[in-house]
Amino acid sequence: MLPMPRYKVTIAYDGTAFYGWQKQQPPDKEPLRTVQKVMEEAVMELTKVDKVDVVGASRTDSGVHAIGQIGTFVCEREYDLRKLPMMLTARLPADVHVLDAEIVHDDFCPISECTSKGYRYTLTWGCKKEIRRPLFDRHVIAWTAYELELAPMQEAAKYIVGEHDFASFTRKNHGKESTVRKVFSCEVRESGLREIQMDISGNGFLYHMVRIVAGTLLEAGRGYWAPEKIIEIFEAKDRKAAGMTMPPEGLRLEWVSYEQ
Amino acid sequence: MLPMPRYKVTIAYDGTAFYGWQKQQPPDKEPLRTVQKVMEEAVMELTKVDKVDVVGASRTDSGVHAIGQIGTFVCEREYDLRKLPMMLTARLPADVHVLDAEIVHDDFCPISECTSKGYRYTLTWGCKKEIRRPLFDRHVIAWTAYELELAPMQEAAKYIVGEHDFASFTRKNHGKESTVRKVFSCEVRESGLREIQMDISGNGFLYHMVRIVAGTLLEAGRGYWAPEKIIEIFEAKDRKAAGMTMPPEGLRLEWVSYEQ
Repeated sequence: MLPMPRYKVTIAYDGTAFYGWQKQQPPDKEPLRTVQKVMEEAVMELTKVDKVDVVGASRTDSGVHAIGQIGTFVCEREYDLRKLPMMLTARLPADVHVLDAEIVHDDFCPISECTSKGYRYTLTWGCKKEIRRPLFDRHVIAWTAYELELAPMQEAAKYIVGEHDFASFTRKNHGKESTVRKVFSCEVRESGLREIQMDISGNGFLYHMVRIVAGTLLEAGRGYWAPEKIIEIFEAKDRKAAGMTMPPEGLRLEWVSYEQ
Repeated sequence: MLPMPRYKVTIAYDGTAFYGWQKQQPPDKEPLRTVQKVMEEAVMELTKVDKVDVVGASRTDSGVHAIGQIGTFVCEREYDLRKLPMMLTARLPADVHVLDAEIVHDDFCPISECTSKGYRYTLTWGCKKEIRRPLFDRHVIAWTAYELELAPMQEAAKYIVGEHDFASFTRKNHGKESTVRKVFSCEVRESGLREIQMDISGNGFLYHMVRIVAGTLLEAGRGYWAPEKIIEIFEAKDRKAAGMTMPPEGLRLEWVSYEQ
């Protein structure tokens, strides 16, 4: 018997109305609305099977967005790869789109074979009369009342880059064997009037890591910590040493990369 | 006794989660969530009174947005006009902002004294694989599967300008004495990749008029009607002669103007 084709799809979603990526089944209740759940429902509807597993590269949290999530699934039928994204999107709710599809080798795993990921955090700041909180895009941009300066955030971001023990940048009971991760790049730029974007890429990210990095750079941006403070925070290996966990709406998974 | 100050405020809102501007009280049910209702609640909370009327310049429909709605109310206390917008916004839900405040003469009416209004309708089009429906901004941009051409829409828009009987561009039982309105300008432009904006201003608009004008220009844009068809549609004085009523999410009230 020939192995069934394994599909790798690129998924974009507005995370506002989702309890994150991963399926969740509270006891004695309906399963929560998650991206994995609606993806599996769309694949089952298309392929007319009763069960399918869609494995995602990244377990994004409740309220976090994606334009480059990767999901894989196997199914018996072969689909035209140019048409498959639309066939799935047509069966998905309006807040999830499938952007691209390809066939991958039979034992491809989107989690273990991932070599790097990129996230973007977008933030606006200020609370004076002439400064507006986001209105129409408040679900995709975070907001802080602090006045921020770009240069110290850019300075602090340089300390984030490299291989470090990110124990201070994740929750205390992270349950991971190692908290060492390699950040390839961390760039902060002005993306609009009083709007700041942080782009970060690395070989892996701990739970809440990007949002805690963003909250730590914010402390540098508002002048509370000098950029060099990051060195101390790494050394502390203590969640309390770092800045706050920024809210989910500012975060978006941009891309997931695999060795060719 | 001195008359109480009458405030005129500029209001922006994301209409997605509102049943339009106007208060609505279904029998034996909770009042619907409308912008007027939450505005009156915010004013009552601020001014510590039990009842207030916030009169709006335009009764925007369910799902329609605004960045330049005008509301007026009277209250006993005098507020610092620079601070009043923030004081109200702080008491409003996240989908309504008060942008500006001024004091107007004692018998100012935002409806009868309005001399012109401007609306914008934003639309994306196309359904091929490489063309995406709006995702993160699907609540503020309408979408059509038709392929659209800009030039015939611009051509058709010219016929909309001027004083006309807009009876074909409103619902059949409009209940208005006159359906003659004057459109000062109607401009269609490309505002992004496969994204089209229509800006329309006039001395007054009938129920659904802007959305029906947009739906009629769409028929020109997809090549179903020649631009000159607009002349016939005016002459018909029949709702069925015009194009479809476009969905509310693409519509935004931009500004309301008064004689100085």
